[in-house]
Amino acid sequence: MEKIHIIKIGGNIIDNPERLNTFLKDFAVIPGKKVLVHGGGKIASDLSLTLGISPKLIDGRRVTDADSLKVVTMVYGGLINKNVVAQLQAHQCNAIGLTGADGNIIQAHKRVHPQIDYGFVGDIDKVDGEKLDVFLKGGFVPVFAALTHDQQGTMLNTNADTIAAQLAIALSGFYQTELVYCFEKKGVLKSIDNENSVIRQLDETAYQHLKQEGVIAAGMIPKLDNAFETLHKGVHSVIIGKAEDLLHSITENDVLGTLLQGPVKQ
Amino acid sequence: MEKIHIIKIGGNIIDNPERLNTFLKDFAVIPGKKVLVHGGGKIASDLSLTLGISPKLIDGRRVTDADSLKVVTMVYGGLINKNVVAQLQAHQCNAIGLTGADGNIIQAHKRVHPQIDYGFVGDIDKVDGEKLDVFLKGGFVPVFAALTHDQQGTMLNTNADTIAAQLAIALSGFYQTELVYCFEKKGVLKSIDNENSVIRQLDETAYQHLKQEGVIAAGMIPKLDNAFETLHKGVHSVIIGKAEDLLHSITENDVLGTLLQGPVKQ
Repeated sequence: MEKIHIIKIGGNIIDNPERLNTFLKDFAVIPGKKVLVHGGGKIASDLSLTLGISPKLIDGRRVTDADSLKVVTMVYGGLINKNVVAQLQAHQCNAIGLTGADGNIIQAHKRVHPQIDYGFVGDIDKVDGEKLDVFLKGGFVPVFAALTHDQQGTMLNTNADTIAAQLAIALSGFYQTELVYCFEKKGVLKSIDNENSVIRQLDETAYQHLKQEGVIAAGMIPKLDNAFETLHKGVHSVIIGKAEDLLHSITENDVLGTLLQGPVKQ
Repeated sequence: MEKIHIIKIGGNIIDNPERLNTFLKDFAVIPGKKVLVHGGGKIASDLSLTLGISPKLIDGRRVTDADSLKVVTMVYGGLINKNVVAQLQAHQCNAIGLTGADGNIIQAHKRVHPQIDYGFVGDIDKVDGEKLDVFLKGGFVPVFAALTHDQQGTMLNTNADTIAAQLAIALSGFYQTELVYCFEKKGVLKSIDNENSVIRQLDETAYQHLKQEGVIAAGMIPKLDNAFETLHKGVHSVIIGKAEDLLHSITENDVLGTLLQGPVKQ
């Protein structure tokens, strides 16, 4: 099966023009098929502040009201997405910017919660892998902003990690998928304060063991639970770590960061 | 040859949510292949004002400085484009939002002018009709925002009429193209104050005649000169008028508005 990389970057790269530029230059030369997913970052919060829209948080989660939805649609779907695409094009990478609404590739609904109204936040119902494959087969490199739609005309703010995971699962029918989560640490650490304590490989048994022992940092648990879930749903492997290291891992085939692998397939 | 419609709408529709909604509903049911091109409108000017960016005009033309470029990238490429796509999807039209940077479909350069620095304004060098056709053949309906890129990483604010014209010319190799310019009048008028004086059909000889006689309003002349130029470059026909009338023209095959036809082809 042909390989594909689905790479997610967040605010720590998006918000830093130099890091972003270096990242995009490296991303452009990754051989084979690939998809980029980006979140937003400080730019959206800064614009909200300037416009006098105060951020609303419930239990540490941002609530997306109508004005905030406009801001993220502008910033994620417009400013960040189009500048990333233009920069990738300058590096001869044939990028095309997308949201879940484009081509109806990611179908979602407004989050339903018994107590909390999260506002215009999307939970994903389905990814149309076949439609996405039209772009991949056409030689394009999809760049997804963290936005979906409700199929009734409304855009929805959607977690970028989740989008990357769902795209990877949907593409597993056609490709050997590797999901690449770039974040601020070098990988899953044995000791949270020691960047040299990266766990190089983690299978589910070892993970459950380390989780019970309290070795895995609390903040990493949802990320890793979700990552292992993607492996159960067809994703071939997940790598987690610093962007620079992970892109090196891909081009040099020498894993820096933490590698999670799924059950061996028959 | 298969037909395709390239339809351009401007601020008079974009700025009016009800008209936009009606337009998109009607656009969704146009049979066959189609492309939508939208300009911006008041939304970008309003956001600029709120952000304290004052519009700069030279000889009545807006100059796009770095801050204004950010605003149009957000508003045209993000807010308007993604909401149009989401609404078309709600009407079962498989729209995909694009700028010239996406897929490198429209290659442009920053305008060079001996006296005036227009800022980040794009003049089009080339449209890649074959790449655009990948989307059309894939069953997608491209929705273009009035943005291109310089192939060196910078987005460029670009006239929506020109984008529509260049797309139509590029697609003329593959399709029988009809370029549809929606604007505030019912068509080209014999008498500027009389909406009932629409000239139904106009060929180039008649146009030159009316122009010399001073019948054609000055403001219409660049639009019509450009329209006739597209006919020389392969476009099959151009229709100009009110959006509602033109969509009716297409679905009912009964032209309201002004029809310009090119030289009869062998």
